Order: sequence, then C-alpha cells, then structure tokens
Amino acid sequence: MVKVGIVGGTGYTGVELLRLLAAHPEVELALITSRSEAGLPVAEMFPGLRGHVDLTFSAPDPVALAACDVVFFATPNGVAMQSVPELLEAGVKVIDLAADFRLKDTEEWEQWYGQPHACPQLLDEAVYGLPEVNRAAISEARLIANPGCYPTAVQLGLLPLLEKGLVDTGRLIADCKSGVSGAGRKAAVSTLLCETSESFKAYGVAGHRHWPEICQGLNAVVAFEGKGGVGLTFVPHLVPMLRGIHATLYATLLSTNDATDADLQTLYEQRYASEPFVDVLPVGSHPETRSVKGVNVCRIAIHRPQGADTVVILSVIDNLVKGAAGQAVQNMNILCDLPETAGLTGIALVP
Amino acid sequence: MVKVGIVGGTGYTGVELLRLLAAHPEVELALITSRSEAGLPVAEMFPGLRGHVDLTFSAPDPVALAACDVVFFATPNGVAMQSVPELLEAGVKVIDLAADFRLKDTEEWEQWYGQPHACPQLLDEAVYGLPEVNRAAISEARLIANPGCYPTAVQLGLLPLLEKGLVDTGRLIADCKSGVSGAGRKAAVSTLLCETSESFKAYGVAGHRHWPEICQGLNAVVAFEGKGGVGLTFVPHLVPMLRGIHATLYATLLSTNDATDADLQTLYEQRYASEPFVDVLPVGSHPETRSVKGVNVCRIAIHRPQGADTVVILSVIDNLVKGAAGQAVQNMNILCDLPETAGLTGIALVP
Amino acid sequence: MVKVGIVGGTGYTGVELLRLLAAHPEVELALITSRSEAGLPVAEMFPGLRGHVDLTFSAPDPVALAACDVVFFATPNGVAMQSVPELLEAGVKVIDLAADFRLKDTEEWEQWYGQPHACPQLLDEAVYGLPEVNRAAISEARLIANPGCYPTAVQLGLLPLLEKGLVDTGRLIADCKSGVSGAGRKAAVSTLLCETSESFKAYGVAGHRHWPEICQGLNAVVAFEGKGGVGLTFVPHLVPMLRGIHATLYATLLSTNDATDADLQTLYEQRYASEPFVDVLPVGSHPETRSVKGVNVCRIAIHRPQGADTVVILSVIDNLVKGAAGQAVQNMNILCDLPETAGLTGIALVP
Amino acid sequence: MVKVGIVGGTGYTGVELLRLLAAHPEVELALITSRSEAGLPVAEMFPGLRGHVDLTFSAPDPVALAACDVVFFATPNGVAMQSVPELLEAGVKVIDLAADFRLKDTEEWEQWYGQPHACPQLLDEAVYGLPEVNRAAISEARLIANPGCYPTAVQLGLLPLLEKGLVDTGRLIADCKSGVSGAGRKAAVSTLLCETSESFKAYGVAGHRHWPEICQGLNAVVAFEGKGGVGLTFVPHLVPMLRGIHATLYATLLSTNDATDADLQTLYEQRYASEPFVDVLPVGSHPETRSVKGVNVCRIAIHRPQGADTVVILSVIDNLVKGAAGQAVQNMNILCDLPETAGLTGIALVP
Repeated sequence: MVKVGIVGGTGYTGVELLRLLAAHPEVELALITSRSEAGLPVAEMFPGLRGHVDLTFSAPDPVALAACDVVFFATPNGVAMQSVPELLEAGVKVIDLAADFRLKDTEEWEQWYGQPHACPQLLDEAVYGLPEVNRAAISEARLIANPGCYPTAVQLGLLPLLEKGLVDTGRLIADCKSGVSGAGRKAAVSTLLCETSESFKAYGVAGHRHWPEICQGLNAVVAFEGKGGVGLTFVPHLVPMLRGIHATLYATLLSTNDATDADLQTLYEQRYASEPFVDVLPVGSHPETRSVKGVNVCRIAIHRPQGADTVVILSVIDNLVKGAAGQAVQNMNILCDLPETAGLTGIALVP
Repeated sequence: MVKVGIVGGTGYTGVELLRLLAAHPEVELALITSRSEAGLPVAEMFPGLRGHVDLTFSAPDPVALAACDVVFFATPNGVAMQSVPELLEAGVKVIDLAADFRLKDTEEWEQWYGQPHACPQLLDEAVYGLPEVNRAAISEARLIANPGCYPTAVQLGLLPLLEKGLVDTGRLIADCKSGVSGAGRKAAVSTLLCETSESFKAYGVAGHRHWPEICQGLNAVVAFEGKGGVGLTFVPHLVPMLRGIHATLYATLLSTNDATDADLQTLYEQRYASEPFVDVLPVGSHPETRSVKGVNVCRIAIHRPQGADTVVILSVIDNLVKGAAGQAVQNMNILCDLPETAGLTGIALVP
Repeated sequence: MVKVGIVGGTGYTGVELLRLLAAHPEVELALITSRSEAGLPVAEMFPGLRGHVDLTFSAPDPVALAACDVVFFATPNGVAMQSVPELLEAGVKVIDLAADFRLKDTEEWEQWYGQPHACPQLLDEAVYGLPEVNRAAISEARLIANPGCYPTAVQLGLLPLLEKGLVDTGRLIADCKSGVSGAGRKAAVSTLLCETSESFKAYGVAGHRHWPEICQGLNAVVAFEGKGGVGLTFVPHLVPMLRGIHATLYATLLSTNDATDADLQTLYEQRYASEPFVDVLPVGSHPETRSVKGVNVCRIAIHRPQGADTVVILSVIDNLVKGAAGQAVQNMNILCDLPETAGLTGIALVP
Repeated sequence: MVKVGIVGGTGYTGVELLRLLAAHPEVELALITSRSEAGLPVAEMFPGLRGHVDLTFSAPDPVALAACDVVFFATPNGVAMQSVPELLEAGVKVIDLAADFRLKDTEEWEQWYGQPHACPQLLDEAVYGLPEVNRAAISEARLIANPGCYPTAVQLGLLPLLEKGLVDTGRLIADCKSGVSGAGRKAAVSTLLCETSESFKAYGVAGHRHWPEICQGLNAVVAFEGKGGVGLTFVPHLVPMLRGIHATLYATLLSTNDATDADLQTLYEQRYASEPFVDVLPVGSHPETRSVKGVNVCRIAIHRPQGADTVVILSVIDNLVKGAAGQAVQNMNILCDLPETAGLTGIALVP
C-alpha cells in the first residue's frame, strides 16, 4: 500500500483527489491538511464522502507529511514550493497539482505568477506529468508538476500533428471552454451561480497562465529553443456547467505532400493506440464533455472541414480528473510502479 | 458470476444499469435488447461506455433471455408483463424497473396505468423490492417489482415514524422534487432543456401513479386493510437538474406522551443502523441531492421546527440509482446471495 | 416626473430596480449610491445597462438624497434604519427593500435580526407594502417596508382562504423553493455555481427570518393578537436556477359546510379580480416560475387532490420583481399617485 | 399602426416575436397561424403571454394574411417559399425568419437545404436583412430574408476588418457557441435537458447551413465573385444555456503597414458609431452573452493578444432577438418607416 498525504484538501481538486484515492485499491490515505479547517471531519465538509473517508483535516505537520510515501499538493499556486524541498529531502515523492513547478524558466514563472520562486533550483528537476509524453521520466521522478487542465486537453490534441511536422507551427489556435469548477472553491462574486449560469464569455484573452505552459510543451515537441517557438493564440471561455473542458484546435496543414495527403485519423489512432486514457473517436465524431464526466479520459476527434487545409481537432477532458486529480493519480501509479489504471477505471456519469 | 440480461437499455435507467453492472465484480453482462436499436453497438449510443461495454443492442430473443440467471426490464410500463411469465417458467429471476408489478390490487393497477394487466396472477407473488422493508422476501423471490423513485424516498423517510405509531397517519404530506431524468429519455417537448431549465413547477397534483404505490407501502406498515388507509397528499415537482430527488415530508405528532417526547433522531439512527444504504445525518442537517449523485444511498435528516408538533423529514436519493438502477442491483445482490453492497460502493460525484 | 434615489445598488435587487426604473416613464433616476463602488459608472459593473443608465455610483450623501422625492434602500438588513429618520424628516418618501421595517414588534425584530433596532419608533408607522392588502395605507405612507420574497408568495397564496375562515389556521404548511438570486450578490462559497448547480436542498428549517414576517401578515388577517397566532411550518429550499419562487401551500379545510362546499376557484378569482398583478390560473393548472420571469406578477393555482380536505395552493413569483424590486416600484406608483402598472408592463422572458 | 400577421408561432422565434410585437407601440397584431394548434388560445400554450396576447392560433388563411401590411414567417425552412409569391402579389411585405431566401444561388440553396426551391425567381429580389449592411435596400424591399443567428454575430464581428482590407480573407475562423434555443421547440431526444445540460460539444463541423450564408455575406464585402471567395472555417458548439450566441473570431492581419498599425478599436467604434444595436465595448472587454439577454443588441470586443498578428474578435447576441425575432422587428421598422428602435428598447434581464 502506498501511504499518501494531501496538503490542502478543501478545494475541488482536493475533494476529487479524495474521491479517487478513497476508492484506490493500493492507497492508504494517511492524512489531509488544511490550515483553516483543522479539526473538522472531512465528511462534514463534503457529506458525499460519509462512510468513505474517516479523516479529519489536520494542520500541516512536516513530520507527519515526511512519513508518507507520496504527498499531493492541492493548494493555491505558490504554496507547494515553500515545503517541497524539505519533503524531497525526507525522501517523499511529491506531486504538485498547482503550477509551482510547471514552467522550466524561472523568469517566465515569476512573471506569470507575480512572485519570486522559492526554489528555482528544482524547476529543472521537476518532471512535467503528462504521461503520454513523459512516462519514462515520471517513473523516475521525485517531483511531478501535474499539468494544468487546459494544457492537458490542448497538448494531447495537438501532439500527433506537431510530432509529425504536418502543420504550420506559427499559427496554432486553441479555442478552449471550461466548466466553472476550474475556477476553484473560493468565495468570489465572479463564480456565483448568478454570475455564471445562463451566460457564456471569454476571459483572459490578453494573457492566461496556461499559455506559456502550453507553449513550453509544444516547443519541446518541435524542438524550439528560446522564446520564439510556436505561435499559439489561446482563448479560454467559461461554460455554465460544473465540469468539463472542450478544446477546439485549429492548425493549418503545410502544403507539402506529406501533410496534405496525411491520413490524420490513422495518425491519431496509432499515436494513442497503447494509451489507456486517450480515446480517439471514429471519423466524424463530436465528443461531448459529459462523455468524460468523472473519468480520467481524453476523447479526441479529428476533422478537416470541406477538405480544406485547416485541421480542426476536438479534445475533451474532465478538468478535475484528467485535467487535475485523475492525472495526478495516474502519475502516482507510474511513480509507484502500480498498474497505471489502478483506481482510475470508473465510468462516466451520464446523464 | 451472475449472467445478466437487460431488456430495453436505451433509456436513462437502462444506461445507468449498464454503468453499474459493467463495473460489478460478480456480473457477466450477457445481452441487452432494444427493438429499435438492434445492431447498434451500445457504446455508439453512449460514448461514455466506450471501453467498458462491448455489447451490441439485439432484438429481444426469448431463448437468449432464458439463458440468463437474472433479467432486468428497463422498459416502459406495460412491456415487462408481456414476457415475464415465460421467463419465470424458464427459471429466470426477473427484476422489473417499471411499474408492472408494483401494485397488489389488479383493479387499482389497471385504473392508474390505463390498460388491462397481462398477468394479474403474478401480482401477489411479486415482491416489492424495498430491501429496508422486504429483505427476507426479496432473497426468496422469483420476481421483484423495483420501487418507483418517489416511493423509495418517501417510504424510507416516513417508515420509522409509522412503524412506531407516532404520527397522525390521516394527514401526511409528501412535497417531492425530482430532477428531469425521472421523465425518461424520449422525444418530448415538455422535457427539452428550453422547457425545463431555469424554471420550477409542480405537476400531477390531481393524481400521480406513485401515490397509490406509496400508500400501499405505508398501509402495509400501519396494517390498514381496504381502500381507506393512510391519508397522504403527494405533490411532485420538477427541478431544473439532471438527477436527484428531495422529499420534504410533513407529519403531525400524536399528542400522546410517547409521541411528543420521542427522540426522533435516535429512533431513525437505530432503525437504519444496519442498513448499508440509508444514512441518517446529524441533528440539524439539510441533505443536498448532490451528496448522493451517482450512488445508491438515501440520506435523511429529521427536524421539528420550533419544537412544535409538525415533524419535517428531509430525504434525498439519486432517482436513477437508489430510485431505480442501483436499487435493482441491490435487489439482485440479495436475490443471488452476493454481498448486498457488491458493485454499489461508488462515491458521489461532487461537484 | 418622480425624482428617485437608490441607496446600495450593487446587489441583485439594486440592479433589478435600475432595470425597471430606467424604463419607467415617470421616473427621473437622480442618483445611486455605493460606498464601495463610488466613482464607478454603473454600466461598467452591469454592461447590460449600457445605453440605459448613465449614472456613476456615488458615496452616500444625505443632502443629495434629501433632494429626492423617493429613496429606495436596496441595502443589507440594518443599513436603512440608520438613515431613514433623517430622510423622512427631510420630507422624502422611503421604500426599504430590506427587512428593517417589516416586523411590528421591536423585540421580535431584534431577536431575528440579531441587533438592536436603530429607530423602533418608526416600526409602527411603517406600512407593510403588500398592495393587495394595504393599498390605501400605502398611498398615505411616508415609509414603506417592502415585503420579503417568500412572504409575498405565501401571503398572496393563502389570503383568500384565511379571509374567509375556511381552513385550520393552526396547521398551515408553506413548502417554498427559491432560485439562487435570493441569496444576494456577495462573495460566498455557499452560492457558487459549483455549490448550487445540479443540486437541491432545504435550508433554515429550524428557523428563517421570513417566518415571523409571514406569521405577522397572516395573523393580521385572522385577527390574532399576541404571540400565539397561526400555526405555520415554513420550509425554504434552494433551486438551481437564477430567479423564481414557487410556494406550495397546504391547508386543511374546516369540516363546516361553508368550507367543504366552497368553490375555491371562484373565491380566488373574485378576490383578485381587480388586482393588476395577481393572476389566478384556470382549474387544474401548474404555474411555472418562468411564466413570471422578469415581471411583477404572482400566478396562483388552486388544487384539492382527490377531493380530500387538504387544499394545495401553488403560487409563483419572480423573487427579484414581485418579490422585491417590482413590488417596490408598484409601491412607489401607489405612493406617488401614478398608474399602479406604470413601468411594470413587461412580458415574461420565455424561454 | 402596422397590421401584422405571423405564420407559425409555436416555436421559440415565434413566441419571441409575439413578446416583442405585443409591446410594440406601432403594431396591431392581427393574426397568428398554426396548422397544428388552430383553435388554441396563444396564452394557453405560453402562459407568460396571459394578459398581453389575446389571439387564438388560426389555420393559415391566405385571405386573412393578405389583409396584413406585414407578414412574418416563423416556420421551418421550406414553408415560407410556398406562400410568399402569392402574398407579395397581394401587396403584403414579407419577412422570413427561416432560410428560404437567404442564399442568392439557387443551386447552392438546394444543395444545403436538400429540396428544390419553390420560387427561385425571388432569390434575387429578396433583401438580406442585416440592417448594418443593407439598410437602404431593406427600406425599399418587398421581401426580407432575415439573417441566421450565427451569420449575424459573425458578420457584425468581421465586417470592419474586411471592409478595410486589413486581414487575410483566406484564413478566417469563426468558433461559435450557441444556447440550446437555437435548436428550436420540437420534440427531439438531442435537445432534452438530460442530453444537453452539464455538457458542451461541437456539432456540424463537417458542414453547417450557416456556413454558405456567412461566406456569401463576407464575399459581398470583399467583392469576390464565383465560388472561391473567403476561406472560412466555421465550427458551431452547443452551450448548456437557453439563449445567447458567442462568436470568437480569428483573423490574421496582413503584413502591410496599414494593417499592422491599424487602431482596431477606433475602427470598430467608428464603423458602428451610428448603429443603434451594435455596441463596441471598451478595450480589454469580454462581453458576456447575458449582457444581451432578451435584447436586440450585438456587443463586440476587439483583442490582439500579445500584440501578435492574430486578431481576436468577441461578438455576442441573443440568438432569439438580434439573431432572429428582434432583427425581424428592426427590419419591419425600417420597412415601414418607423423609428428603427421602436419596440426594441428593452434592457437585458440580468441575472
């Protein structure tokens, strides 16, 4: 059994992590910390966990955490980096669901997250936890930077095209839509039901923190160096629903024979043939976000409308599962040499 | 392994049954029939089942069904009764999720369901599948009438009060609210998103088929005979959400010492102490329907506002699980001598 | 033209008041105050008002307010009472949309609102602004206590029965359901979309501030004195939608001939025949809350299921209109001797 | 007063037309036809219209329609064209809210709508009713083809860029999102609440009927002839909400000085300065669809993320108002020489 601790379990990624880990056959849930809720039984805050999670929130305690095999951070950005070095030293494996270790470039991180980084020396060591790209490195890692939700959907959707060099990397568009749970569980007017229901809007068009993360991932594939790299326009939108991300991706096929003649459906099917959590849908499909509600799956469809040179990729995930807690558990499984699908075999809840 | 067949799997109870049975450790899903969709892979209609259910809808075939240990009917009212006698004769156990065998009185059934009953001789034998009341009989049954969704929430909420004779049985009120999935998956204007979202209404106030079913169940507890019985006012409402039933139940305490001094919280806790799927919440609680989303649980809270003689019971279930498919699986477990919780240990999906 | 000021216009009742007053043919919107947002153009906070409201939020200024004919308070409870005496002295008419002047009994007010009342001497003078009951007094008033949302729906639903003495006043039940906008526009976890969407729950069953308000109104009708009065069980619930209240009301007909033979449909139709904003629906109707979305109407249907002695009244309003801002404008119209329907002739937005 | 008839008033555009016309100061609503609902009072089907619309649905009667000044068709595609020639001959002005007269090319129309056109000779005469482009022609027209919802949002969003020749017309992308009311009010599984709520998906990626309509409009601006024309990728998506369209438009600035130095904000503000129903938001805005809920307004924001050469335009409308019924009334106003804003001055309902 893997002994697991969770730091910061009162948000939506935290409670989702609890849901998955409580049902995981190889996990012993040892402790869950919350400075503000210390002393409160977890199931009192989340009655849906009654009978499944008997833990009580505890104040963060380095000793108790150091006794875990794996510690998940489901904390706001900037929290994990304060304690990670100490935990690593104690031999604990760390998976950070926030953004503290996602960017490799310290300066870029500090610019986007508006604060100095507490342990820039770890940025290089941290492994970006997208198993479909970095499985081998993950299995050897001490510190995993669990990818953002948008970056997961976008990278899985674009990777096969970029790996084969079929599209113009200077003109990529990711028009993304997310359910409201992506904004977290904090008191705020902007995510009240009365502010978000029955409406739809874009946000952060001028710049969103997931943009450099996606670019970094795509640049790695196309072997760019420096700040140049791929040209990506990223526009996130807020959908009046709880869970789900839908990425609609646009890329222009190069005018080479390789590109215009490519069998994209086969390309995607082969690329993901052995991936347990990426599902390439049949030709002509339109994946619904509900088809991945509550499960660690990315479903992808490939279109080329009117046979023109614009490829349209549709990629859906549950932002709290493959986009957060589920991918974190997948990373833990790889890290701990468990079957990669352990605890992740649930079926989407439809309707 | 229990070999299972499903008749009529294209509705919401059908697909929910598939979700639960596909993950059930002791079940072999042998066939699923649909006259209209014969030949279509199930996962094509419900992409959320991709990778979990490989079956294709088949036309109903008595021979194939007769080879099953258990057959579930997830069909419209009036369908199961056409084939059940034949299946019972073949030694198959049958669980009907529709209403064909819920009422004991043939005349009453025919009046409420507007058609002659095809096998009234089975009404008496059929066991009403509310395990919290009829567990022993269920374990011996050949034919289970799986309870309606409202009747499950209402009966579990009122039983302890009625069993102890604490309230005026002539003046019970069940103000019930249901998500839209209770209306089924059929083309209809009345359940379009644009007709049901952002609105709330009562319906069927003059008379609803679940009223005689609830009355029959409550009458059995208070040992009424004849048409008199309990006096129940039942008002169902439609809530703009997918899943969930909330029953708000009102009863008047009798003015005897026993009743006015009763410790209702303890009464409920003791009544349901050994029930795996009934959860009595702490004093002062307000159960949310989402706390049972996707799971086979009924959560109950007991209130007595201002210490007056009106008791208010709040009872929530997921109409598709404890109110339909989950309870059906629970009945199958009892029937087949499996652990009662087998395949039913999931955790509510929140948010 | 009536010169109007609004104190506290950043909540949902405030912006609804702006929507109605901006389109009111006899109103000049003079100023709107908000301590926290002073200096911000109103249309910047609420872009839907662009082109209709040119005002900028200003800090509360007694002189500017005193220059108005009518001042509306759309503030949290306990704010209006701090400034009302001064405004009345300046000859301004005041309509308070909060609860500061709704209860007549100072002690009761202080108990339910948890603070001392700043001007108890005004409680008696304040007129409870339910025009269907107090029209004459409203037209003469200086200070209007605009009713709560639940109290409006419940009182309009029960009045005809109580006025005629047809039902047992000791056993009234009001099972009420409200959209989330009733909880206001303040940063809070409990009303996030992710906490309220796709779920349904009761709240405040032990005691809600609208309970004494409703009791006071009903007691006035049945001429009770003292704390005894009607026996009302009031259970509010939260519906996953923006707007709307649905009150399901239960009363027991007395066993007198008058009561059991009463033609309730005709009674209601006659009672409200000349009321511009109460619409009694045909026999057998089930009013939907969306049928009053955005409009100052209460729609009512009367049922007597199975001809038994329990009467079921269904009463719907838009909590922000007839339950708040619309009723306030109606009160202003009466107060200022304008046509009662001025500015209130909009049609419900469906779907 | 303009005497108005409506053919086919039982859908969502029909009832929205009723809502707007019933409150229009210069309109006499003479008749509304529905073959299937003849004899039913309109307010019985739509209780929100009680007290505002006294009409009863009547069977279509050419004589009665011929007595109108203006007839609106709110019918399925292919219906209007059967009766329009006759009505025009009778001197009636016709506004078709369906697609029968939107495309100029008969062959193209027949291909996309899958049927022969009943009066191709009128395609040329029909005026495409986008007032911001065709105001003069509309004022002289006998027959107006009211634009589709997506085409309205997309064209208003792209026009200023195309008129000035600033962007690459061969690589335009319109990523559009619509509320469910766009799918109409017909019994169908695909638009049930339980199929569309809590989910998001693209549809019609391979080809949607609004694609040729948009292309035709854009081609007219850039003066293309023949089938070549602009290169547009159009991907519509379904949003779990009632009303609203959000178009996210991507265009590549040409590398000319004119283009890269253009002040796009000023360009848009000047283009729409005198348009009563197009609202260009301040720099940095993200329009919400709810800001136009129920009103005849298109709100637009212009972005150029990271100063790169990809322009992102955000354009929102209410699909039932500026995208259908409201624009039809606007066209009627122009046609009948009424103030263009008559009956269209309502304020968005928020929340």
